[in-house]
Amino acid sequence: MKRTSRDIRTANRYGVLRHVVAQSPVSRQEVAAATELSPATVANLVGELLDLGMLVEVGYEDSDGGRPRGLVAVNSSGAALIGVDVAETYIHVELFDLALTVLARADEELRPRENDPGKVVAHIADAVSSVVEQAGVAADRVLGVGVSMPGQVDREGGVSVFAANWDWHDVPLLRLLAEHIPYPLYLDNPLRACTVAEQWFGAARGRNDAVVVNLGTGVGAGLALGGTLHRGVSNSAGEWGHTTLVLDGRQCHCGNQGCVETYVGAPGIMRNLRELSPDSPLLHPDDQTATIEALGRGLMEGDPVAVKVVHTTARYLGAALADLINLLNPEVIVLSSWVAAALGEPLLAEVRAAVAGRALRRPLANTEIVLCPIPSNPVSLGAATFALEGSLASVGRKNRRTTPGDRATPRNRATPRDRTTPS
Amino acid sequence: MKRTSRDIRTANRYGVLRHVVAQSPVSRQEVAAATELSPATVANLVGELLDLGMLVEVGYEDSDGGRPRGLVAVNSSGAALIGVDVAETYIHVELFDLALTVLARADEELRPRENDPGKVVAHIADAVSSVVEQAGVAADRVLGVGVSMPGQVDREGGVSVFAANWDWHDVPLLRLLAEHIPYPLYLDNPLRACTVAEQWFGAARGRNDAVVVNLGTGVGAGLALGGTLHRGVSNSAGEWGHTTLVLDGRQCHCGNQGCVETYVGAPGIMRNLRELSPDSPLLHPDDQTATIEALGRGLMEGDPVAVKVVHTTARYLGAALADLINLLNPEVIVLSSWVAAALGEPLLAEVRAAVAGRALRRPLANTEIVLCPIPSNPVSLGAATFALEGSLASVGRKNRRTTPGDRATPRNRATPRDRTTPS
Ligand SMILES: [Zn+2]
Ligand SMILES: [Zn+2]
Repeated sequence: MKRTSRDIRTANRYGVLRHVVAQSPVSRQEVAAATELSPATVANLVGELLDLGMLVEVGYEDSDGGRPRGLVAVNSSGAALIGVDVAETYIHVELFDLALTVLARADEELRPRENDPGKVVAHIADAVSSVVEQAGVAADRVLGVGVSMPGQVDREGGVSVFAANWDWHDVPLLRLLAEHIPYPLYLDNPLRACTVAEQWFGAARGRNDAVVVNLGTGVGAGLALGGTLHRGVSNSAGEWGHTTLVLDGRQCHCGNQGCVETYVGAPGIMRNLRELSPDSPLLHPDDQTATIEALGRGLMEGDPVAVKVVHTTARYLGAALADLINLLNPEVIVLSSWVAAALGEPLLAEVRAAVAGRALRRPLANTEIVLCPIPSNPVSLGAATFALEGSLASVGRKNRRTTPGDRATPRNRATPRDRTTPS
Repeated sequence: MKRTSRDIRTANRYGVLRHVVAQSPVSRQEVAAATELSPATVANLVGELLDLGMLVEVGYEDSDGGRPRGLVAVNSSGAALIGVDVAETYIHVELFDLALTVLARADEELRPRENDPGKVVAHIADAVSSVVEQAGVAADRVLGVGVSMPGQVDREGGVSVFAANWDWHDVPLLRLLAEHIPYPLYLDNPLRACTVAEQWFGAARGRNDAVVVNLGTGVGAGLALGGTLHRGVSNSAGEWGHTTLVLDGRQCHCGNQGCVETYVGAPGIMRNLRELSPDSPLLHPDDQTATIEALGRGLMEGDPVAVKVVHTTARYLGAALADLINLLNPEVIVLSSWVAAALGEPLLAEVRAAVAGRALRRPLANTEIVLCPIPSNPVSLGAATFALEGSLASVGRKNRRTTPGDRATPRNRATPRDRTTPS
């Protein structure tokens, strides 16, 4: 009973803007056809987005024999969005225009001793100031800042990160950031950022049920079901990396054994390589990135060890993806993140074959498996998209742009839960 | 982009009626509080349900010092619903009043040679006629007939059943049934019927994200996510029984190896027993039902073999349920169907312990695991509920009650897809 007609209106606003971002310039009639919304609803939502300065009228096109049709386009310079990708060793910040084109970038390195909350917040605030200054954007044009944190983000904006050199437990990050950053803030993790990026700009656009599988050091599955991000009751859905593939199998850092991640995450793939060929020159024992890149080059050159490692990895990954297909029956599975990018098409081909040998016929026939088609960093793009969604969700609740004073008080910040279920 | 404001209105209608069914008599104010809908919306929806004859005004209650509040209740005798549970060896039909109280029952046995589509349809039609006659209900009071088929049901109402003595491949069952049954028809499978029953009358009521795990000969997981049934792109989501628990493990009839079903379905539990104690008197080699019942009695008596078999089964089941918790982060997991009923509380206790040892801390802390609390057959109840939902979804599209002629033509039948996404 938590979805309201306001949620539907917000979702429709997303749908209209998504289509205009992708197809500008475009007529209202085309938007209606693509979104399956009524012409009246589209006219109304387009009017709202024009009033907000997010769209502009850009002329007319002839329609066969009928009246010329008005065209609208994204008002690229109408506003700016900022996406922040915090990883274990760096902070990457991008400022986008409304067409989600990058206008400015800033990077900060995080040294091993610099990951306490105060230092991380200072680095983020510096990088945000830097991109705003570089782009020469007026502060009141910044619709919001999306921040992706490599960990668990709770409803109140607390963050827990358990990584090699990190140990954050329920750090009130949203509050700390709000003390230093004068824009609306939206906080989530990379898994969900990538999923939202695919929904707006990638392979999940226009799909009702999609799964975005992140293959990196850790692995996870972002779930876009019924057209919306599935978060679960405590915003922690998607921990596919910690589902069991081999009962009593390899030890996982989560405490369980045989988790998917231990077979198809970067350290798992290194182990697959070590088990097949312990002395392979492809193996860089202390460097995941170098090993995965060496495997990628090996595949291109037809190196038999690289081919075999990817075949073995694809057998594990295929079984674990077949589980997602059988359980969720999605239209598309997108393979994302740096391991998927490094192993690319050869991995995809092997994975498709492995899945075909395991998934049930009927859901299998309805699922496509593709590589992430987004050419830039999907995490900072997705983080900025959270800010875009947040500002669209708040339309009609209060006009933030005319009351900038409101934005500086933490109690007005949108929390992750606010973004999806405005009350 | 497929959800519309009509969908929201339909979902809100479900929510209001669900609450009134559970709490009759009840005031609009209480309904508004329980559903989180505005008082105006509730007043409007209650008015609609009063006009339809589904609710009645039943008097007033005092409110502290204020005006007396009007009470509404379900108009039990206002209409009837029929639920059909087709299994491999029987057909069980129940006719319910609007409070979902059973008014009449009919059972038909299906002999091994009687499962061709024509014979099954004739048995269903006979049983439906029988319950209408027994209950003495006028034909125009029957809102619809929900039919649960033990197989895959596609969007157009075709059914495939692959069971011991069955081999139905894309049988156009909805069309065949429509030739013999003069009521609106709604077709789906037992997994989804049980899930809808839990949403309306059981442990999923008022929960946004719930998983209903069916433990029978086959096993599956009905997914109620974001408050609605998740069907997937080809209406085949929920095949958790065919996700991999043990890579390269026990051979499954689906062609894969190591599926969850081979460890925790009734034949899998028999195998667990046979591996632990091949000569146990609990084992009835050709009779699943007798074996599971013997295990249930053994648990009550503290039989060490029964205790050990359930411990082993719970270890498998706990790992597979932890997968659902980590991936979907639900509020509640409901254990349903005859195996869960037969092994009851002792199984539940072992399963909770096994899950606690495997699931991630954060989603685990937010998930309850319970036994199905519905005292009657949840499949026929859920099938009837599909008919109730279907009639609520069609309110405002056309008034079926005043144009009964419409109902007899197959092209007006709601298909499974129609029920969830009215266009
Ligand atoms: Zn794990
Ligand atoms: Zn199977």
